[in-house]
Amino acid sequence: MPTPITLTTDFGQRDAYVGAMKGVLLSLAPGAPLIDISHEVAPQDVMEAAFLLREAYPYFPEGTVHLAVVDPGVGTERRAIAIRAGGHFFVGPDNGLFSLVLSGSDPEGIVVLDRPKVWRAPDASATFHGRDVFAPVAARLATGARLKDVGTPTDTLHPLRWAMPVADDEGIRGWIVHVDRYGNCVTNISEADVQRWQKGRGLKAYAGSDVLEGLHHTYADVPPGDGLLLVGSSGLLEVAVNRGNAAELLGIRKGASITLVFSPSR
Amino acid sequence: MPTPITLTTDFGQRDAYVGAMKGVLLSLAPGAPLIDISHEVAPQDVMEAAFLLREAYPYFPEGTVHLAVVDPGVGTERRAIAIRAGGHFFVGPDNGLFSLVLSGSDPEGIVVLDRPKVWRAPDASATFHGRDVFAPVAARLATGARLKDVGTPTDTLHPLRWAMPVADDEGIRGWIVHVDRYGNCVTNISEADVQRWQKGRGLKAYAGSDVLEGLHHTYADVPPGDGLLLVGSSGLLEVAVNRGNAAELLGIRKGASITLVFSPSR
Amino acid sequence: MPTPITLTTDFGQRDAYVGAMKGVLLSLAPGAPLIDISHEVAPQDVMEAAFLLREAYPYFPEGTVHLAVVDPGVGTERRAIAIRAGGHFFVGPDNGLFSLVLSGSDPEGIVVLDRPKVWRAPDASATFHGRDVFAPVAARLATGARLKDVGTPTDTLHPLRWAMPVADDEGIRGWIVHVDRYGNCVTNISEADVQRWQKGRGLKAYAGSDVLEGLHHTYADVPPGDGLLLVGSSGLLEVAVNRGNAAELLGIRKGASITLVFSPSR
Repeated sequence: MPTPITLTTDFGQRDAYVGAMKGVLLSLAPGAPLIDISHEVAPQDVMEAAFLLREAYPYFPEGTVHLAVVDPGVGTERRAIAIRAGGHFFVGPDNGLFSLVLSGSDPEGIVVLDRPKVWRAPDASATFHGRDVFAPVAARLATGARLKDVGTPTDTLHPLRWAMPVADDEGIRGWIVHVDRYGNCVTNISEADVQRWQKGRGLKAYAGSDVLEGLHHTYADVPPGDGLLLVGSSGLLEVAVNRGNAAELLGIRKGASITLVFSPSR
Repeated sequence: MPTPITLTTDFGQRDAYVGAMKGVLLSLAPGAPLIDISHEVAPQDVMEAAFLLREAYPYFPEGTVHLAVVDPGVGTERRAIAIRAGGHFFVGPDNGLFSLVLSGSDPEGIVVLDRPKVWRAPDASATFHGRDVFAPVAARLATGARLKDVGTPTDTLHPLRWAMPVADDEGIRGWIVHVDRYGNCVTNISEADVQRWQKGRGLKAYAGSDVLEGLHHTYADVPPGDGLLLVGSSGLLEVAVNRGNAAELLGIRKGASITLVFSPSR
Repeated sequence: MPTPITLTTDFGQRDAYVGAMKGVLLSLAPGAPLIDISHEVAPQDVMEAAFLLREAYPYFPEGTVHLAVVDPGVGTERRAIAIRAGGHFFVGPDNGLFSLVLSGSDPEGIVVLDRPKVWRAPDASATFHGRDVFAPVAARLATGARLKDVGTPTDTLHPLRWAMPVADDEGIRGWIVHVDRYGNCVTNISEADVQRWQKGRGLKAYAGSDVLEGLHHTYADVPPGDGLLLVGSSGLLEVAVNRGNAAELLGIRKGASITLVFSPSR
């Protein structure tokens, strides 16, 4: 069965850029399932693409090639890379796009894409490496090429500053890293962070205009219209409103802070 | 040839939810064509999803699995179901999503999804059954499982109140159930409804700010900019404007009423 | 390996129209990869669809069938056609949709789609030829039918007026034909146009509120926030702003003019 290739970009779906890239992929990897993760990343928002990739990639079969192109530095000296990690491949610019995927695990290999021979044409466009460099490399990895066939090994990766929550015995301070279509506000605080510090105590969360009591299991644990804090489907804490839009109703935006305070009573 | 799986959700295309769900589908049903019907259903609008599914599903080959997730009650006692009807499979929450698909025909089977063994993991997320329950079940049905392999038979389904048009010898009163991208306003009045009551008489339609004469065949039957009533591609009456946006030009919104009056002269 | 079919429409992604069309395609061409170029063409903007098709189609493998439906004249006397050109197939209404694809090359064949036998049903909907006429024909071409199997040869095509740049020894005047998601403004002036007239001289471009010096290679050739003129990924000149939105920052809209002036000094 051909290897799937996923696509994560800030190209949008109005222009022909995604189509051109898929044409290249299909030409070099006929039959490979091409799966969109998102093309609606805010233009040049590398961090958002890194977050979406983290949320989706683990559910794909091993061997899947994840092509990600949010590339404000296209045409500069920024490197183009391919990574193998956890049995998956990642291809794109070296600007931090893959940092959340790799957090906590060592990649099996990283190469710098420096072989114009495996690109679409030796004279790649200076503004569309997605079509001319990354798609051909992704297609070759999907059809059996190894990392060393497409580039030269390297040990370094461009880091991405992903704010870590600050925790102590009193509580945890974190940030909203994503607001989804429903208005659910995903934080950078994981369930594991809470378990480590809560130690059986009660918990209050200060988020936007609301104070939320306790950590809930699902939206319907509170009456419709009420806010709640729960562990989202990716293991990160979320602020939500049962059958409502938390971002709007509680006045929370991406980047806003959230403070958890532990208390003896539960 | 692998069985296609369609997807209809209110997830939007900005987040990673659709991607995660497709990763699960591809992992369990490699090679299955994954076809998006729509992910732009208004958040939690079960009725809109039911309408879109009704419009699209009949054109897919028999055996196709239609996965639909608009699930405001996720994590509550609402049931998860799979249905076989007209040779197609339907998988999703039991909240009325499939009611329009089934109207007028008895399903060949309905099961409640109560077998965690066939889910992605026994401990499904309480907020993302699309990924953890419905996608795995859809994938298994697409790869040969039978209804009884994924759940326990039931006879009941949660009903969805779909307003029926009111008709008598004078005329028909109906409602706008969908406004499409062009501003065409789809009613809940079918061509068969009209044929049953019109009996060769003339017809006037009162819709928004306009009075439309007769039932037309296609947009170009009236001059550009004029309103008209026609039988749309799904057999329901539509209010349209030739080369214009009827919803805007005639001031019609989803839920608005439309009145057909029959008259002796044709 | 089955032949890919691409889709370019103004259907949007909210309604069920694309889904219904893909159901028909999959029913008649099981296993064919179905690739979206764009469904976000502005309603009834034939020119925009023609442009997007021109940008994407050359990157697909030979034999690919390109189905395009922007069809304000559906249900009128406008013809339905299929074209073979450069080894690719094109299927859609004869309203100029394929004119940019064909510019500069003679098609290998053109047929008028006049065989209801190969449609979805002899009584095609008068408003949705995408589903009932074009999709079935595209599917048949993708599964081995020849042009003569789906229609009757013709020599004529409906022309589309695509404004050509005006050039002389002093300079070139062109127009903005597309503004992409990033705000990059694509002109109708090609790199070849410039090479033919520039003859080693310097170049200034008057576009929107800015005067741009020289023709650049990539965005990063100027400081962030500065405007520049460069050759875009499709060989047409583009006005861009490094890490910014040129359309907004320079006040440029689709249809706006751009003037290039050559000067002795380089």
